[in-house]
Amino acid sequence: MLFFENDYGHGAHPAVLRRLCETNLTPQPGYGEDAYSENARRLIREACGAPEADVFFLAGGTQVNAVAVGGLLRPWEGACAASTGHINAHEAGAVEFTGHKVLALPQRHGKLEAETLVAALADFYADPNHEHMVFPGMVYISHPTEYGTLYTRAELTELSDICKKYHISLYMDGARLAYALAADKDLTLPDIAALCDAFTVGGTKCGALCGEALVFPKGGPERFLTLIKQRGALLAKGRLCGAQFEALFEDGLYFELGKSAVALAMELRKGLLARGFALFEDSPTNQQFPVVPNALLPELGKCVAYSFWEKRGEGESVIRLATSWATRPEDVEELFKILDNMTVGG
Amino acid sequence: MLFFENDYGHGAHPAVLRRLCETNLTPQPGYGEDAYSENARRLIREACGAPEADVFFLAGGTQVNAVAVGGLLRPWEGACAASTGHINAHEAGAVEFTGHKVLALPQRHGKLEAETLVAALADFYADPNHEHMVFPGMVYISHPTEYGTLYTRAELTELSDICKKYHISLYMDGARLAYALAADKDLTLPDIAALCDAFTVGGTKCGALCGEALVFPKGGPERFLTLIKQRGALLAKGRLCGAQFEALFEDGLYFELGKSAVALAMELRKGLLARGFALFEDSPTNQQFPVVPNALLPELGKCVAYSFWEKRGEGESVIRLATSWATRPEDVEELFKILDNMTVGG
Amino acid sequence: MLFFENDYGHGAHPAVLRRLCETNLTPQPGYGEDAYSENARRLIREACGAPEADVFFLAGGTQVNAVAVGGLLRPWEGACAASTGHINAHEAGAVEFTGHKVLALPQRHGKLEAETLVAALADFYADPNHEHMVFPGMVYISHPTEYGTLYTRAELTELSDICKKYHISLYMDGARLAYALAADKDLTLPDIAALCDAFTVGGTKCGALCGEALVFPKGGPERFLTLIKQRGALLAKGRLCGAQFEALFEDGLYFELGKSAVALAMELRKGLLARGFALFEDSPTNQQFPVVPNALLPELGKCVAYSFWEKRGEGESVIRLATSWATRPEDVEELFKILDNMTVGG
Amino acid sequence: MLFFENDYGHGAHPAVLRRLCETNLTPQPGYGEDAYSENARRLIREACGAPEADVFFLAGGTQVNAVAVGGLLRPWEGACAASTGHINAHEAGAVEFTGHKVLALPQRHGKLEAETLVAALADFYADPNHEHMVFPGMVYISHPTEYGTLYTRAELTELSDICKKYHISLYMDGARLAYALAADKDLTLPDIAALCDAFTVGGTKCGALCGEALVFPKGGPERFLTLIKQRGALLAKGRLCGAQFEALFEDGLYFELGKSAVALAMELRKGLLARGFALFEDSPTNQQFPVVPNALLPELGKCVAYSFWEKRGEGESVIRLATSWATRPEDVEELFKILDNMTVGG
Repeated sequence: MLFFENDYGHGAHPAVLRRLCETNLTPQPGYGEDAYSENARRLIREACGAPEADVFFLAGGTQVNAVAVGGLLRPWEGACAASTGHINAHEAGAVEFTGHKVLALPQRHGKLEAETLVAALADFYADPNHEHMVFPGMVYISHPTEYGTLYTRAELTELSDICKKYHISLYMDGARLAYALAADKDLTLPDIAALCDAFTVGGTKCGALCGEALVFPKGGPERFLTLIKQRGALLAKGRLCGAQFEALFEDGLYFELGKSAVALAMELRKGLLARGFALFEDSPTNQQFPVVPNALLPELGKCVAYSFWEKRGEGESVIRLATSWATRPEDVEELFKILDNMTVGG
Repeated sequence: MLFFENDYGHGAHPAVLRRLCETNLTPQPGYGEDAYSENARRLIREACGAPEADVFFLAGGTQVNAVAVGGLLRPWEGACAASTGHINAHEAGAVEFTGHKVLALPQRHGKLEAETLVAALADFYADPNHEHMVFPGMVYISHPTEYGTLYTRAELTELSDICKKYHISLYMDGARLAYALAADKDLTLPDIAALCDAFTVGGTKCGALCGEALVFPKGGPERFLTLIKQRGALLAKGRLCGAQFEALFEDGLYFELGKSAVALAMELRKGLLARGFALFEDSPTNQQFPVVPNALLPELGKCVAYSFWEKRGEGESVIRLATSWATRPEDVEELFKILDNMTVGG
Repeated sequence: MLFFENDYGHGAHPAVLRRLCETNLTPQPGYGEDAYSENARRLIREACGAPEADVFFLAGGTQVNAVAVGGLLRPWEGACAASTGHINAHEAGAVEFTGHKVLALPQRHGKLEAETLVAALADFYADPNHEHMVFPGMVYISHPTEYGTLYTRAELTELSDICKKYHISLYMDGARLAYALAADKDLTLPDIAALCDAFTVGGTKCGALCGEALVFPKGGPERFLTLIKQRGALLAKGRLCGAQFEALFEDGLYFELGKSAVALAMELRKGLLARGFALFEDSPTNQQFPVVPNALLPELGKCVAYSFWEKRGEGESVIRLATSWATRPEDVEELFKILDNMTVGG
Repeated sequence: MLFFENDYGHGAHPAVLRRLCETNLTPQPGYGEDAYSENARRLIREACGAPEADVFFLAGGTQVNAVAVGGLLRPWEGACAASTGHINAHEAGAVEFTGHKVLALPQRHGKLEAETLVAALADFYADPNHEHMVFPGMVYISHPTEYGTLYTRAELTELSDICKKYHISLYMDGARLAYALAADKDLTLPDIAALCDAFTVGGTKCGALCGEALVFPKGGPERFLTLIKQRGALLAKGRLCGAQFEALFEDGLYFELGKSAVALAMELRKGLLARGFALFEDSPTNQQFPVVPNALLPELGKCVAYSFWEKRGEGESVIRLATSWATRPEDVEELFKILDNMTVGG
């Protein structure tokens, strides 16, 4: 069975797991004060070119979004997000559980566009009743988006400028950041650190067993450790995340595994197009969204683990094929063979 | 440096880590639907003698308490707990963050006694204004308690009977359950499953890298997976907990590592008493609380990692010494030597 | 200055105020156990044809919505509402503050249509990831809507049937219910009680100083009084709402004042159309939404208090003119004179 | 039937009701922007000697406490309060519903003493684990307390100094403030305004139909109107509170009605002591707490409405007798006659 279902189906990148093994018997303080977390924070600060950054390690993606969004907002504020944004659609209301509204805005290619944002903000303040409404207190974007697409450096700069003008925070959900950085040389980690008030460097979907690094390039909110604890997100064995991120950011592993996955995704993309499959979104990252005739799906499902995305008209569906550090070139080759046989025999 | 600071200072028990390595390259579905979690749930159900139990794996202790307590309570209810209970004192208000009051009650040896509970419940319902007050909706106990003490089978039965009479849930925080089970043969895991509505089987402090198993012996609350997700506690790589608990509950490792730690703690206890140290609480589990002259602390701290617990009068302090799977008999011997030299030379 | 700004600009209907004066010196128990509240509940049950109904009196509209919606939902659920629904747009996130998402759906004429709702529900349950999403747990509608429009009996029946099929609650925000009942003889209060699980009978905007009656025709949720108290909405002097609703529902005052306001609104509507003003929505209730050239607004504002609603293209605006129990026929005549002079001289 | 059950059993002081009648037909803007609220704010600022004060009117006591406490605290903070404080004991967990813990501290005569507070704060910061605990973020006191007792000027100054030292807010729940001000000439309203960061001037229990004025002497928190709206506490007809507080603070009515009630309570106290009744607390305000043999209660209850407070040993109970603006000297005389007859004939 070929595995293209997602990018979190395997354990950890071998180098990450090796680090856990090597460090296993060395006792360390808890709650993020261990030497590995300390070192990982230093490595991330360096990679971000943000020596003042505060870095926290949390276990999961929905968790880090809820803690960061809930922690950055003031009580009367909500978070602007594309309607397709993960916090709006697929986190079971985790942000609302912290008492805050997600202010859903129209998206294009999964992205929140500057003109959409600026119009929403202008309309809000122009409304004479706005004191009776939820104040837009921050902007949430995901990069790559839920559709695999990317913000350009110009786009992110524009969003950042708008946020600065309105004195609101810009937060980037980087659950799959490794693939964004690998796909686009134009927008670097230091750029992101310079343009966002907070962002995550995803581990779970980028080679770790678990863990997301939450980075506040200009320093974090007051008493953030206590806030993390209050929201049930402070790991006793902080070393678990610390050692993993140390391995990911030493010697550039995070960037390397992103590159490898994206390169194979581009092979995949080329091969899919060559075989006549349309793409639902033109994604430059590790998730590809081919449109597939429904008739092919049962047979495909016998040898390939994929994700169903959504129906498209009567006879077709969008599926998601994802690569990761665990995908090998021969997996892509094998997938093509299967598709070729299916197209012939289907 | 000897390490007696706590029971979560090392990584994972080698067998647990080995399992993560062995399973690393096998792709699995996410969010707890992997084969390891499935198997771990089965093993835990067996160990509990509760074939109908629902079992969920969450990453950490404060998290699982907040999700379970918040999930078991109805909106107008609070959780009764000993004032020293972890949810009342040391979780940064995580239960209150879910909108519920912790109804703190007096403790004795860290335990909530049946007569204290029954008086509180009777007083509540006798108060003509009780509709203007927080309803007691469940009982939280920790076992072992924060002082290392244990509920006897008779005590737990009594609490359970009171809860049944008042139609409220009984929840046991078993963050250190391995040590309780090892210390007291009278109260078994099947007993706990029969007497409690929900309880945790702690992993983080009992040999895992992370993870707590939340067990509902008679079946869990409705839509509990969504509730876990909503509260940011659903791990994408559920396999991380699944594989670890599989290793812990195959071949009885969980019980074995508890026994080893408790046996060494009993050595420690004996040696401390023999050397004239009083014990703040007489703990039968892996945490020991000797009373130590303040004058000894600086020197002790040079060679032994311990936890400061609290001041006691002018010249003494209570400290905590904890054993775990990682503690070796020679560590205890070495500690005694240090103490002997200190007592002589201090 | 003519007052058409809203329907809550004056004090109370004289008969309501008189009742407060008459009852003022008679001592009564607090928290809704007074004789007036008791009697008002009886009168409302009768008017609803719902002898089993539970009725609670709360002070304000946003408050009663937040308490009812938050109280009806289970923790993992959200409330479906038209995007223009008051809880989604104009209550400062009060529902989200209780931890629940408002699931905004497209509206038509301010209404949530049955086909929109059924599609949303079907899509939700068809999504294989729906356990990671907010469950639709109830439907919120306002009647009249924020645009003054009304659900027909057939429409409400359809929504009610869908809710029954999906086992979710149907809640109607009747902040302006008096005007709905006056405008449409087809959908009566007993119909509403038969079709909804909960609804409000608005007082603040229908002749009272304050107060909304929250009606659960088939009986209210468990411990609802405590829930009201918990959310800061239980009035110590419950008599304040009780006496007012007694006056409103004795001798049919609630229906009469609705009729008077709607009759004048229809005069207004006729006169506006006759004078060539387009209507933004064709409202059969006490709120009328004429489209007015921006050039007229400053002069109009000198003699008439109106509400600005929204801009419409370059040169025009939608304004709201509202009638109430305090509006007199001569006020409408006077308004027409002002408009006639303006059209001539403007 | 004599009414001594509480101080909110009647409607409003006649002058307050008269004001509602006089202003009834004058249209006003909503949401607190009416002329009466404006004037009432001015009058309160003057009475407080706090020209910079922000003043908000909310409907009820639990509501204003939850909004103020929840609004003053930062997310990781809780409110210190005497264990008998209203927010801890009798508000159904309204503060916890906003996500914050009430940090209950021992009380004496219903008061939080400076040394108790300072010890709690010192202990908190001395605890090396305090980052894992709820930070004390404010102090809540009630004045008069739930036992009718009062803070002296010296005591309030001491609490205020401690709060300043620890950079936390001091909030006074003045639900019955009129009686405190009448009973103690030493601690004036300007003193309170100078020493507290926020306090309420209670209306509901001091002559109004409803309404509490929330005063921030040095200016209120940012966007507080929106926060009030978010928590369901913003009245559309702000005039209802505005007109009432205007009447209460014009010509010193608030102080006069307090004096009258306290003078009668002191008569009551004297007469109770003269008749040999012990007092549970020595209250200088409008609530008196005599200890009464249980055998007398049934007969007393036939002619006097009183509140049961608590049992005291085997044969006695504490009851509460409260005076208000509606209590007449002859009511007290009549009560004494009843007691005299009962004592004779009981």
